[in-house]
Amino acid sequence: MLLAPPPAAQVGDTLATVATPSLLIDLAAFEANVAQMGTLTARHGVALRPHAKAHKSSAIARRQVDAGAVGVCCQKLSEAYPFAAAGIESIHISNEFVGADKVRMAVELAAHVRLSVCVDAMAQVVALGEAAERAGVQIDVLPEVDVGQHRCGVMTGDALLLLVDAIAAQPALRFTGIQAYHGGAQHIADWSARTTEAGRAAEQAAHFVCTLQARGIQCAIVTGGGTGTVELDAASGVYTEVQPGSYLFMDGDYGAIAWGGEWRWRHSLFVLSTIMSATRPGVAVCDVGLKGLAVDSGLPRSVRLLNASGGPELTYIAANDEHGMLESKAARHDDASALLGKRILLPPGHCDPTVNLYDEYLIYRDQEVIEIWPIDARGLSR
Amino acid sequence: MLLAPPPAAQVGDTLATVATPSLLIDLAAFEANVAQMGTLTARHGVALRPHAKAHKSSAIARRQVDAGAVGVCCQKLSEAYPFAAAGIESIHISNEFVGADKVRMAVELAAHVRLSVCVDAMAQVVALGEAAERAGVQIDVLPEVDVGQHRCGVMTGDALLLLVDAIAAQPALRFTGIQAYHGGAQHIADWSARTTEAGRAAEQAAHFVCTLQARGIQCAIVTGGGTGTVELDAASGVYTEVQPGSYLFMDGDYGAIAWGGEWRWRHSLFVLSTIMSATRPGVAVCDVGLKGLAVDSGLPRSVRLLNASGGPELTYIAANDEHGMLESKAARHDDASALLGKRILLPPGHCDPTVNLYDEYLIYRDQEVIEIWPIDARGLSR
Repeated sequence: MLLAPPPAAQVGDTLATVATPSLLIDLAAFEANVAQMGTLTARHGVALRPHAKAHKSSAIARRQVDAGAVGVCCQKLSEAYPFAAAGIESIHISNEFVGADKVRMAVELAAHVRLSVCVDAMAQVVALGEAAERAGVQIDVLPEVDVGQHRCGVMTGDALLLLVDAIAAQPALRFTGIQAYHGGAQHIADWSARTTEAGRAAEQAAHFVCTLQARGIQCAIVTGGGTGTVELDAASGVYTEVQPGSYLFMDGDYGAIAWGGEWRWRHSLFVLSTIMSATRPGVAVCDVGLKGLAVDSGLPRSVRLLNASGGPELTYIAANDEHGMLESKAARHDDASALLGKRILLPPGHCDPTVNLYDEYLIYRDQEVIEIWPIDARGLSR
Repeated sequence: MLLAPPPAAQVGDTLATVATPSLLIDLAAFEANVAQMGTLTARHGVALRPHAKAHKSSAIARRQVDAGAVGVCCQKLSEAYPFAAAGIESIHISNEFVGADKVRMAVELAAHVRLSVCVDAMAQVVALGEAAERAGVQIDVLPEVDVGQHRCGVMTGDALLLLVDAIAAQPALRFTGIQAYHGGAQHIADWSARTTEAGRAAEQAAHFVCTLQARGIQCAIVTGGGTGTVELDAASGVYTEVQPGSYLFMDGDYGAIAWGGEWRWRHSLFVLSTIMSATRPGVAVCDVGLKGLAVDSGLPRSVRLLNASGGPELTYIAANDEHGMLESKAARHDDASALLGKRILLPPGHCDPTVNLYDEYLIYRDQEVIEIWPIDARGLSR
């Protein structure tokens, strides 16, 4: 007995008929974002290495590389496998890792792709170097430096130099630069304050580079930056490579902060949901809750009725596991039952962990599903 | 080229060597919870229909049925497929649904299992009844009544009677009872207030039953209740069936509320994580963040070092996508690097959406992995 849920959609279906909840990409907005990031980075002569943790899809990575990206970032080693399997040739693990299970993955990946990784401790360097040498593979290593995130990374030039020396002592490892990522700067709401903080991060990164140069060590790569600061990072003269991820999609959090620079990004990612209960005045319940929307950065900030001009203005006010509570302010005392069966488009509050809940994107143009892209790195957090 | 991440563990591995992050079940605690719920429900003569949305694993459903459960609840139709495929014979969809894609799934499932579903609107009854009749299947229908959750469900006896009449008019549908679930009562911290609210829900459910009886309609099933109120629901004399899910695992939220009754449940679910960076005094960073821990009900409320007696007391203070920030209060001014590579056990704040992030459970006893159970309904939210 083959008993499995039917596919959510087939190419040619419309958004009025595909199964819900589904994760949608508005292809026109997505393609505009991809093209614009290519233009931005080319103008400043920096490499674009988009972060694949945002989309977790080798189909998207392929499009990014075809549009000029030098490769992708992954946040975890297991996450890199689908991209390596799909032929993405250069993968940077923008994160530290410890443990025999992790070192085994790094060595295996390095046999198939040009792999670079981050370190911030001697023990990481030694374990990786010895395993890579035994396996006969070469791994590029970029020590992470703390430029304001206060999470991972060394805090001083002296600590950086110790790591660079340790890398040099491992024949299978090669020092190629540093990672200077300041995640906290990405979401600062005020553009001027964000500009200041990005400038401070670049200045600190430059200071680490100078420390190396004073010892005669060239630092070919300074990688970092994200969607919120990308045009500042690219123009800094310090970063040689930027790692934005969310620019593809945008989300509620990025949509709510100020964008005072030259570039704007379009919302391309939506969860499609159906209103499946509406028994109370002014209240409706949709079929997407915590298991279809990450709420760590807040609930969806807008609710758009599919194929409806006008209609009540709805607010998403609470998420249960599989229910979303919607309130209609205008209709607080009205019968909500007319909403039963209506479909809504919800922009996630935070794109990355929302994507990680789904197995595929439905790609649409003019309300029609034209492609389906697997989220082949979904759940790969090791 | 077959290039895929290695398995997280093999049977016989210890918790010191399996890949992290991994989702663990402490089998002794889990089995104690399963046995205790059997005892509790048997004592009160109520049916146990555990909620599979909590565990999403047919391996666990099989153990629940083997221990006396009459079947399982699912929250979505697609979620029911792995349980139907695994031979669970009675499945209740404890939720409303609307749309042709959903009705098709219901009809297909009903050809393989004894299926019951919830409704709260005439349109749901008619669409389902017509499709079931065309397909030649029989579906049990339990209108949902609102007993305090104020989410789905009819609010009045009159509305209930209309639905019961509509069900009776559909030859392929059969009215078997009502669902009276009050999710909001489950997590009330004060035991006395929780008792009061559970009593109020039972009273309202009884009122709906009386309304039916006054019309000569027997209500064989009154289903509802959850882990937080299960002993109250079971003893109420109103509920004939209870739907607890989290009792298997417990979580931070359930662990933080008062339990004033007779029964206690053990924490059996943990995320195993590795500290992969520790460069700052008093701070360490582990490899589990938003993509390995649902944070809608708060961060992990405790951090336990694996295989360590003593050691610094750690607090999980922030979750990024793939990083967890740990603070060591005692060691705020100490070098944290001794923590690098150490493993920690984290109880999730909310079990259901955390389980939905993983593809398997590692089942352990005495620190050894003795079984691996697939989470075969992971991500099935349609």
